[in-house]
Amino acid sequence: MKGLPKVVIIGAGFGGLFAARTLADKPVEVLLVDANNFHTFKPLLYQVATSALDPSQIAYPVRTIFRSARNIHFLMGEVTAINNLDKNVLIEMEDKIRFETYDYLIVATGSVPAYFDQESFKRHAFELNDLEDAIALRNHILSQFERAVWTDDPDLREALTTLVVVGGGPTGLETAGALYELYNHVLHREFSSDNPLQARVVIVELMPHLLDTYPEKLRQAAIQQLNSLGVEVILENPVKSVVEDHIQLADGQVIPTHTVIWTAGVEASSAAKFLGIELVQRGRIPVSPRMEVEGFDGLFAIGDIAYLEDPVGNPYPMMIPVAKQQGILVARNILRAIQGRAPDDFRYHDRGIMATIGRKRAVAWIYNRLQLHGFIAWLAWLGLHLVTLMGFRNQLNVLVNWIWNYFTYDRSVRIILD
Amino acid sequence: MKGLPKVVIIGAGFGGLFAARTLADKPVEVLLVDANNFHTFKPLLYQVATSALDPSQIAYPVRTIFRSARNIHFLMGEVTAINNLDKNVLIEMEDKIRFETYDYLIVATGSVPAYFDQESFKRHAFELNDLEDAIALRNHILSQFERAVWTDDPDLREALTTLVVVGGGPTGLETAGALYELYNHVLHREFSSDNPLQARVVIVELMPHLLDTYPEKLRQAAIQQLNSLGVEVILENPVKSVVEDHIQLADGQVIPTHTVIWTAGVEASSAAKFLGIELVQRGRIPVSPRMEVEGFDGLFAIGDIAYLEDPVGNPYPMMIPVAKQQGILVARNILRAIQGRAPDDFRYHDRGIMATIGRKRAVAWIYNRLQLHGFIAWLAWLGLHLVTLMGFRNQLNVLVNWIWNYFTYDRSVRIILD
Repeated sequence: MKGLPKVVIIGAGFGGLFAARTLADKPVEVLLVDANNFHTFKPLLYQVATSALDPSQIAYPVRTIFRSARNIHFLMGEVTAINNLDKNVLIEMEDKIRFETYDYLIVATGSVPAYFDQESFKRHAFELNDLEDAIALRNHILSQFERAVWTDDPDLREALTTLVVVGGGPTGLETAGALYELYNHVLHREFSSDNPLQARVVIVELMPHLLDTYPEKLRQAAIQQLNSLGVEVILENPVKSVVEDHIQLADGQVIPTHTVIWTAGVEASSAAKFLGIELVQRGRIPVSPRMEVEGFDGLFAIGDIAYLEDPVGNPYPMMIPVAKQQGILVARNILRAIQGRAPDDFRYHDRGIMATIGRKRAVAWIYNRLQLHGFIAWLAWLGLHLVTLMGFRNQLNVLVNWIWNYFTYDRSVRIILD
Repeated sequence: MKGLPKVVIIGAGFGGLFAARTLADKPVEVLLVDANNFHTFKPLLYQVATSALDPSQIAYPVRTIFRSARNIHFLMGEVTAINNLDKNVLIEMEDKIRFETYDYLIVATGSVPAYFDQESFKRHAFELNDLEDAIALRNHILSQFERAVWTDDPDLREALTTLVVVGGGPTGLETAGALYELYNHVLHREFSSDNPLQARVVIVELMPHLLDTYPEKLRQAAIQQLNSLGVEVILENPVKSVVEDHIQLADGQVIPTHTVIWTAGVEASSAAKFLGIELVQRGRIPVSPRMEVEGFDGLFAIGDIAYLEDPVGNPYPMMIPVAKQQGILVARNILRAIQGRAPDDFRYHDRGIMATIGRKRAVAWIYNRLQLHGFIAWLAWLGLHLVTLMGFRNQLNVLVNWIWNYFTYDRSVRIILD
């Protein structure tokens, strides 16, 4: 094994995972580092937050993925410094530190929620960036209803059962729809005997439309489907403040709520700052079409943390398919370099975008041509997310749960566990 | 609804749950109070702790159980005082308090781990009393192996991968067996490429035998099955001290370990002290054969918190079937009292006891006559626990998981989530 080129990959999201997969059983030694011992399927985090799925159903242990690949090693820990002159990274775990050298480094630590210089909002907002966020939100939502039973003050009860989602992108729509269904299909049946609880779900968006990257027809279809479900949509109204018991919007309107979920956008994770270079749009690392960082020999950035423009001059979106394809490209280029062959440039194969809104409700823009909405788009969404999920057991469990939820109008993971 | 006798039940374990079920749709108003919004199937906590099952698979929302029973109300909160003169209880939730009056009160708050005046052991020991314990233990066990990868010190690595279970009762055996299998069937495959890790699992028992309440033949069979699996058994050796990095036994021997799991016994939960009466053996409330507390009109204690002797003079064991049957009896007696009929005494229908040790390994003593061990006892254990589990979806999920685990030698809930 000695003497093989060593590749260190930081982050076991889709970018890092597909880079490692491409390098499995190839003539390189790979060290994959992540702060968690599992890979998270982030598109379904909102289903964990709304009691539809168990955390473990959308998480898969990294060691299991690479169990049979002898050249892929895993280390649970956090990279806290990159030294490209000496070609090493500093990794920390609890009170321990370790240096690991590399010949090639792939930075794939993704993104975190962005507050656009309104950091004070963060204190009272819930996020949906990782599994811990999703569980914290689930505990909070379920607790709100138990708390509402404890009070006879109608204003407090309304605030406790009002849920505000900030951001009209796919995550915002999916979360709002699932929250409404959790109440409307499940909780209201279980709380009605004491005192009937009304839940209100509101989406707040600063632009005059939802789903910014979608064509106009689908944006309209999304609003119409949200309305038919019962979700309120407030457009062109930026958030002015978020405090413990309410949110205030730019037009002065105040919504009493104890639950604000922030899905208004993301920015590059903090590892981008380790290189000491000037970052671009949302703190991302500018890269060459080969995903290399200029001036840093053998150092690549991929996925949400990297900034690259397509041939027309638009930045590639911060989305899973981009990260996945960039991971595969960089891994292949490393293998080509070892063989003395010239690297390829990144070219994105765009299969389209889709978002679900709830039961039988979704929008899909396939190959940026075919526009679907309603039941057929919802089926397409279900199928795609099922096949993308890691591990046959997880796919089976999620499928069984979805079928169950569909027919019984149930959400069974309704346990409050702090 | 006004004017119906009001029954308050404290605790949604098996005793409280079966009391409430028996009172469903009967001419009483029932308020069931529990600190959790779910009922926990405690016999499978060790499977959550050892990554075989998801927490939600052994937990069931109380409100769902009683969704269609209009006379059963649920309040999430903790009872902190009982005032039987005024016939009310004080319930707390976060910063809120509430008094609830009753005509009949059923105290069914169960038991907690007992340290027998060695409270200092508690600081560094893990327990398996509720779902949060099980998740904390799972995170800890999985983290130990990730930590072991970080060190080259062979002594530290051995300590990190040594797991000690204190107590040779059914819970101790089940936990030790499952821990050994988690290592032997799963983790060793995933850590071998870095540096092979050896796990050691030890049971420590102060008596000269395991399974105190079982006949001699089954005690021997249990030891033999543990040995064949690879679990070490240390008998007649009480624990002298438990600290962060080792445990010391009475004979002076020191076992370096960072994981001590305490299953050495239980005592009544703290609600027993609310009555201000003299408690008996393990802090339990002495009750009449009708489960009434003497001098407390209309107040019953059932399950682990109650102390009652059988006709021969032996105390009824702190076990689920006892709690369940006592819950049903008390509920029926309340209905009889309302009808002006005389109450019945408790008579325990003992169907036997069983404990599993691991894959195809178990002991069972059916109707205290038939003694089974090995594969057939294991099948009996699986079947009984599956049918006792609450909710069809949970039963289905657990069955699918067990079949999967059996054939793939897998444990899929291996995620570290603090």
